[in-house]
Amino acid sequence: MSQPLSSRLASYAAVAAELGLDAVALVPGPNFTRAIGQAFMSHERPFLVVIPADGPAAALVPNLELGSWASVGFEGAVFDWRDQTGYATAFAALMAHLDISSLAVEGQVMRVFVHHALKRAQPDLEITDAEAAISALRMIKTADDIAAMRVAIGISERALARTLDGLRPGQTEKQIEQTLVRLMFEEGADDLAFAPIVAAGDNSAKPHAHAREGYAVRQGDAVLFDFGARKDGFAADITRTVFLGHATDEAREVYDTVLRANLAGLAVTRAGVTAHEIDDVVTGVLEASPFAGRIRTKTGHGLGREVHEAPYIMRGNHLSLPAGTVYTNEPGLYEIGNFGVRIEDDVLVTEDGCTSLTAFPKELMVLPC
Amino acid sequence: MSQPLSSRLASYAAVAAELGLDAVALVPGPNFTRAIGQAFMSHERPFLVVIPADGPAAALVPNLELGSWASVGFEGAVFDWRDQTGYATAFAALMAHLDISSLAVEGQVMRVFVHHALKRAQPDLEITDAEAAISALRMIKTADDIAAMRVAIGISERALARTLDGLRPGQTEKQIEQTLVRLMFEEGADDLAFAPIVAAGDNSAKPHAHAREGYAVRQGDAVLFDFGARKDGFAADITRTVFLGHATDEAREVYDTVLRANLAGLAVTRAGVTAHEIDDVVTGVLEASPFAGRIRTKTGHGLGREVHEAPYIMRGNHLSLPAGTVYTNEPGLYEIGNFGVRIEDDVLVTEDGCTSLTAFPKELMVLPC
Repeated sequence: MSQPLSSRLASYAAVAAELGLDAVALVPGPNFTRAIGQAFMSHERPFLVVIPADGPAAALVPNLELGSWASVGFEGAVFDWRDQTGYATAFAALMAHLDISSLAVEGQVMRVFVHHALKRAQPDLEITDAEAAISALRMIKTADDIAAMRVAIGISERALARTLDGLRPGQTEKQIEQTLVRLMFEEGADDLAFAPIVAAGDNSAKPHAHAREGYAVRQGDAVLFDFGARKDGFAADITRTVFLGHATDEAREVYDTVLRANLAGLAVTRAGVTAHEIDDVVTGVLEASPFAGRIRTKTGHGLGREVHEAPYIMRGNHLSLPAGTVYTNEPGLYEIGNFGVRIEDDVLVTEDGCTSLTAFPKELMVLPC
Repeated sequence: MSQPLSSRLASYAAVAAELGLDAVALVPGPNFTRAIGQAFMSHERPFLVVIPADGPAAALVPNLELGSWASVGFEGAVFDWRDQTGYATAFAALMAHLDISSLAVEGQVMRVFVHHALKRAQPDLEITDAEAAISALRMIKTADDIAAMRVAIGISERALARTLDGLRPGQTEKQIEQTLVRLMFEEGADDLAFAPIVAAGDNSAKPHAHAREGYAVRQGDAVLFDFGARKDGFAADITRTVFLGHATDEAREVYDTVLRANLAGLAVTRAGVTAHEIDDVVTGVLEASPFAGRIRTKTGHGLGREVHEAPYIMRGNHLSLPAGTVYTNEPGLYEIGNFGVRIEDDVLVTEDGCTSLTAFPKELMVLPC
């Protein structure tokens, strides 16, 4: 971790000040990991760090985590609680200690039971969903972050290349998925970034399809892979769509349209471009095609510790992207009941353009049967 | 899926009625998967099924999920929304359609941004955290559920046996963890149930330790494995602690204490026992030992689609366990800075006793160096 804990915590204090709120609360998840420098699990046990705009941070820690917590180097007050006695007393003590009246929380991470525990401890506490402002601190990747992402992407790409080498008609989607997963671990993944999608034929038309045990891939199928490894806390998220044996003229035209959309997005990306502008260009290519009725998603999303994070690359999001942002450029066209095509790169925004961290070929690939 | 969708939904309608609330809301997660019969992802996009105590269910579905949603066979109203236009209108339409004044939600699953979206759509909506009542429907496992758990546990145990066969002083915790993970996939895991813990020496004293890149295991170390595969949606969760080369007298005594606690828990388990009674017996063995100061956790938790779910096996929880419940019996003793021992079985409650689904040996194991 390049920054000391105190300066990482100070960045959240600054968010609270900027929002005009008394403090920011973080629960285990990607912001917590960035702030604390160590990942903690979040199950049924509330675990919370509160960083006031002014003054020292305080934490509510499950007793069984105190051993791991000791290595964090946290200097603020710690209110621990045990399973046997519950957490209500610790919440009350934390809130009494903090003496705040408003709190910014991560709306996409904090669950309702923690929200309720905070309100029970202090009914007049004003809780604001500040997901965007809090997670924005993760948007600009450090050199270390990018290095980890490059490793995760390299692992993923090598696993895909090996999976495609072994792909044969008659294998089920599930078998192909298991091969891909096994190869990601062989190539050095710490974990999967998410449950991969391996979807062939009509299943490829579902953006979030599940691999089927009972469907064997066959000549002419589109086979869509959406997957990624996790390494050192950072995720890869890559999609490629290949064809088995042959691709129809329609499939070729659809593929070409999606690829042109993807390339158009890369062409307009540089520091200062807005999320709206990228999506407008990418989706514009799809809309201008004969396949406009098959559009089902926005262009993409930020990528980092989370597979889906800010910035969301969609029309209406006028956030301008700073250098160091990594986002997914993943246009797709989906005809339900027929087939879908998606091409997804992980794109690093730079001062004068962008770098696709994903290097896997994007030309239409027809695998021999 | 053995039950039809309508009868699965009816079970949630009954929960709403029993709580005296107008409806139950489910968001993607284990209850949603059980209810709908298919897993959906939950990222930044709200996705919600609302099951009223009376009348048909309704759903709020991200537009890009409609293809997958079609195969669910859901007959109620569906309000979809697109990334480009946002979800506020869909929430307003859903709530107008439902005409309810109170809603039971899963407090451990629903995140604050969905809670806020509901309140924005209907400010007077009374939202109650009914996590316990909703998740209780998952507590009694079906024969299919148990079959899946046996497969997940078998995969995990074979992976551990092969990992221990290859374990040698000088390997780092991280290397051992990677071996264990690779072998779980080789043995047929769909996924990891959770990021495994491989912790040696002083790291074993942290109940939720992370494998270190830089620590090579050595003669005399306790090596704690807490891990599990996921198969067909169900999780295994197993812990074994072994010693490398030799175990000190203290380590042997600690190990024996933990094993006696584990066995005492099994001995009192049968349908009708309360979670409190199990924890009281298990923790009682630890408390009666010279190592009472090293207790850091409750006995365990329910296991199924989630790694941690109801029932929580702890004093004060007077829930009586029906036959078909699966819980983890995982006493441990942890001396910070020295070493820890935990032994964890996955226990199926039966009418006249219990069956440990975990069959991996529990006798103190000292691996030759």
